[in-house]
Amino acid sequence: MASTAPVVRHARREDVPAILGLIRELADYEHALDSVEATEETLAATIAFAPSEPSVVSPNPETGLPITEPVSPAKPARCLVLTDPDSGVVVGMALYFYNYSTWRARPGIFLEDLYVKQSERKKGYGKRLLVELAKEVEAMKGGRLEWNVLKWNEPSIKFYESEAIGAQMMSEWVGMRVDGEGLPKLAKLLD
Amino acid sequence: MASTAPVVRHARREDVPAILGLIRELADYEHALDSVEATEETLAATIAFAPSEPSVVSPNPETGLPITEPVSPAKPARCLVLTDPDSGVVVGMALYFYNYSTWRARPGIFLEDLYVKQSERKKGYGKRLLVELAKEVEAMKGGRLEWNVLKWNEPSIKFYESEAIGAQMMSEWVGMRVDGEGLPKLAKLLD
Repeated sequence: MASTAPVVRHARREDVPAILGLIRELADYEHALDSVEATEETLAATIAFAPSEPSVVSPNPETGLPITEPVSPAKPARCLVLTDPDSGVVVGMALYFYNYSTWRARPGIFLEDLYVKQSERKKGYGKRLLVELAKEVEAMKGGRLEWNVLKWNEPSIKFYESEAIGAQMMSEWVGMRVDGEGLPKLAKLLD
Repeated sequence: MASTAPVVRHARREDVPAILGLIRELADYEHALDSVEATEETLAATIAFAPSEPSVVSPNPETGLPITEPVSPAKPARCLVLTDPDSGVVVGMALYFYNYSTWRARPGIFLEDLYVKQSERKKGYGKRLLVELAKEVEAMKGGRLEWNVLKWNEPSIKFYESEAIGAQMMSEWVGMRVDGEGLPKLAKLLD
């Protein structure tokens, strides 16, 4: 166990190389390293970063709301990074965006990617990142914290469904996706 | 078949009662009418609306990008409505927000709710709404159009997987959710 608590903060532009490293590690774990098209340039253009000045703390300690560049359709993602308390190195991240529940007419958070370096597991870092996101959902008066998990990833599912995390599996739903060549084809379907 | 094409436009504030009516019809179809907590007030506060002046066309015909109030974490949703060509009545909607693919480092669209009134089915209205969303993903240089469907809803799945729509089922993934009492509990877990 670390002697001091890890630091969780919103990603700054200079964290991009570390974030890309974690994305590649996660993709490798999910047997899909070939699917990573992200580059430092594209990540830098699509994540809403916190200011680099260490004097600006995000999230705001009073409101619990992040202080970052504004999110927009072209830059919808925010990213929390978790740094090793001793070295300051980024060893975990939670990359997320804002979703919406129509039935509740309330916003929420969708966690797109949660990752902690393999060498840093069993220290409660994943839990810490999920707790920070739950805090932001509470601070924004949101309704839900959601994410997807690969069905074969039983250790993660067991963790998410544990008493501590308290997530429910949405077994009755399945995702649908149009991407790649399918997108321009669908866009032109009625032309 | 309608004699003239239906109009698809971004929802205006005055469409809220019609949107709530469609949300309630959809929830009833999904056997979950009791789950609808949305009210006209909460919908009005959380959807980024187009201006009411009919002179402003959204999406912008040149860029294909919507002209609405800005989206934000507290107001992440946009909504397309489809109106009957003769009566002008709202008979369908596509309520959506912006998601993010980490692997691709690109934004996209997540379709939270697609609904066409039962009396207006088989006119291609659902397809028309999906095409409009695919156009917006293309216009924003996004990577994906995604949504969830109930596994028992075989007619919809068949439609989504058809050659025309071209969606793929994300069978290897399952959603996880923390909501209700679970959210404050998780937020306070490490306090």
